[in-house]
Amino acid sequence: MGMGALRRAYASGATTVRATVEAALARLGDADQDAVWISTADRARILAEADALDARRGQMADLPLYGTLFSVKDNIDVGAMATTAACPAFAYRAPRDATVVARARAAGAICLGKTNMDQFATGLVGTRSPHGTPTNPFNPAAIPGGSSSGAGVSVSTGIVSLAFGTDTGGSGRIPASYNGIWGLKPAPGDWSRAGLVYACRSFDTPTVFAATLDDVCAVDAVVRGRDPADGFSQTITRAPARAPRIAVPERIETFGDDGVAALYDGLRGALGDVGTVDLDRFRAINDLMFFGPFLSERDVAVGEFIAAHPDGCDPVVRDLVLSSRKFTAADAYRAQYAVADCRAALAPFWDAHDVLLTPTVGRIVTRQMVADDPLGPNFGNGYYTNFANPLGLAAISAPVGRAPCGTPWGVTLYALPERMETLIAAARGIVFRPARAAEELTGEDP
Amino acid sequence: MGMGALRRAYASGATTVRATVEAALARLGDADQDAVWISTADRARILAEADALDARRGQMADLPLYGTLFSVKDNIDVGAMATTAACPAFAYRAPRDATVVARARAAGAICLGKTNMDQFATGLVGTRSPHGTPTNPFNPAAIPGGSSSGAGVSVSTGIVSLAFGTDTGGSGRIPASYNGIWGLKPAPGDWSRAGLVYACRSFDTPTVFAATLDDVCAVDAVVRGRDPADGFSQTITRAPARAPRIAVPERIETFGDDGVAALYDGLRGALGDVGTVDLDRFRAINDLMFFGPFLSERDVAVGEFIAAHPDGCDPVVRDLVLSSRKFTAADAYRAQYAVADCRAALAPFWDAHDVLLTPTVGRIVTRQMVADDPLGPNFGNGYYTNFANPLGLAAISAPVGRAPCGTPWGVTLYALPERMETLIAAARGIVFRPARAAEELTGEDP
Repeated sequence: MGMGALRRAYASGATTVRATVEAALARLGDADQDAVWISTADRARILAEADALDARRGQMADLPLYGTLFSVKDNIDVGAMATTAACPAFAYRAPRDATVVARARAAGAICLGKTNMDQFATGLVGTRSPHGTPTNPFNPAAIPGGSSSGAGVSVSTGIVSLAFGTDTGGSGRIPASYNGIWGLKPAPGDWSRAGLVYACRSFDTPTVFAATLDDVCAVDAVVRGRDPADGFSQTITRAPARAPRIAVPERIETFGDDGVAALYDGLRGALGDVGTVDLDRFRAINDLMFFGPFLSERDVAVGEFIAAHPDGCDPVVRDLVLSSRKFTAADAYRAQYAVADCRAALAPFWDAHDVLLTPTVGRIVTRQMVADDPLGPNFGNGYYTNFANPLGLAAISAPVGRAPCGTPWGVTLYALPERMETLIAAARGIVFRPARAAEELTGEDP
Repeated sequence: MGMGALRRAYASGATTVRATVEAALARLGDADQDAVWISTADRARILAEADALDARRGQMADLPLYGTLFSVKDNIDVGAMATTAACPAFAYRAPRDATVVARARAAGAICLGKTNMDQFATGLVGTRSPHGTPTNPFNPAAIPGGSSSGAGVSVSTGIVSLAFGTDTGGSGRIPASYNGIWGLKPAPGDWSRAGLVYACRSFDTPTVFAATLDDVCAVDAVVRGRDPADGFSQTITRAPARAPRIAVPERIETFGDDGVAALYDGLRGALGDVGTVDLDRFRAINDLMFFGPFLSERDVAVGEFIAAHPDGCDPVVRDLVLSSRKFTAADAYRAQYAVADCRAALAPFWDAHDVLLTPTVGRIVTRQMVADDPLGPNFGNGYYTNFANPLGLAAISAPVGRAPCGTPWGVTLYALPERMETLIAAARGIVFRPARAAEELTGEDP
């Protein structure tokens, strides 16, 4: 349920936080939650949290996430629970909540558990996990998207209202598209990373998924800003929203997926008169993510563990991470310069535009496609997403509609960090047809 | 001559720009200019520039560097002249002036020629050049400092008023100390790098040397700020100057040089009540510069050329640059994270202080020391300087006095980029005894 409806139900006494938590706990064994959860919170603990919140109902106004259930991707620490990054042998007991989790809990939210993911956040498909692949609730043949696969499905199946994910090359946006929900990926540094297992420490970021734009924005307001525990974090000053100057790619790549092409054409028509840009100006650095030296950041993060536990790791992830050992320091600096050159070349684009709008994914990938080729469809999923974090951009993936196969599909809007308010305004203005009827997923009037 | 005295002489008609240029041209063959110049400007061209300026004397107020002679380190382009970086085989004809040169010329300055340097700016001593070592005018046994060796001596011998250098690990500060002059090293990005031969592209910066603080600040005002030709450059907003909160190292390292220790103690006493800091908090990243993966940036910049022309290069420089090929991409990212961690750990220091003051060099290095050990004294020269650019700091090296051997010695003041005005105020407040009587070098009343 969306937070707005939930708060009204709490305020009116129509329901209680305990009832919300009990209902969610009762659903954990349902078939649609298969492979979604790696671990779940202690039942007694979260019921006590629920009771404490019910006792504080009069303070709801001070608790922007009051009584909201959320899930946490398993590469983000939740105190006293294991963090595994979907690799059981990697498990450690988190000493404390990651900062985003702590801030959400302080705002009145309750963590239901830790969600499944592509191991070590190395993947954009959701199939690279020893715990299995979460089921896409709209089309079981489709992947759920990754790496935040369980996060996306935990929201699209409605068991939680919010899900924290992470995003390096697209992991906080792609599951939003496949699950017909919203995904907000702040600019790197905007949200603290204290308590995350790094993938590429240079530009990883936590993210959030929810059924409504209001909900992802509410989380953003709660968790963002400088954190002494993360020297990389900062409080980014955001300019007031203005009428967004939107640009779209001169041409899009849908890998032969006519359903996606039709969805995009419909949205494109509704957008009316917007600017265009050669997307290769952004994509110039895409191949660095999974073919280039950026992979070596994953090696620094988890390569030593992987090399020591080759049989305890997903073979695709293992081979990809260890393949990076061929890269030299000179390669890494060349990659850094390529990013700097790409940023510099895009400065005139950002002088003229506030928002870049692209498909989130170019085609609907099925489980069978990934089984047939573990790498190709994964790279394809990153076609529109890989460049964002190296370029320091904020992004919001918005649900647009469903392809003929039934799978949801969305677009992503990108902006410079200081233009976050205009980005949100642009996302709010997008005419879209939700993957599910809005009232079903959010409890709101459409 | 300092610019203030020179402008007064021009304004009164006591001298002309042509006379200044002719006097400098006449001095180029003097012994004190040996090994200072790699190439000099076309005589007819700069005399014509001088005549044009003399004809515009009424516009002096609009030309802040009116009639001022400057030299340019030979890793910075001057249009229609060769750029060699002190490697003759590397020579190319520069298509246009580097941005800092173009801005200085547009402000009324005249370029006398290109100065000698440690080859490829890889050194802090001034001895690593096929053109020989410029003579330290105060003590021929001492090195001139490097890598901007000719730049420093061109100012300390008075043939030019200003010298552009570059700084990666200390090259814009160390020659200031050895030559009894001022060296201003802006924060990376504050001055455009368009037209520079990179050493470490992640944090190189152009710099300026002059006999007075006013003169280096005048150049800063003319050349700083965003340049479309360099996407890395930006216009840094500087806060107004305030009473500087200065900190000095808890203890200093002088490598047994009692003369330097005495000079520092004198200055330290004059400073009175200031804060202290464990300098190892800054120096934590020093070894990355000449022992670690930062060397691989030099490989990207000039390694291909060096490998193809091993006999055309200084052997110390060649072996140092090529030694970097052992570093992996993972090493480079670890170095990047070490810098990020160091910056984060220093945030509380910068909350409490505006300026870090340290010796520029810990001891006076002689030519003989470098002949005996080409590496050790070079690393020693970087003890107080290597960390500044990776940490994004601005710096000013101020002359303090002369060691018993006659060699000048100075201190460097460091600050965050946005605190440049406070840094300048702090430098202005330092009680120092110039290496030469102030009036001799500047033409000003002391």
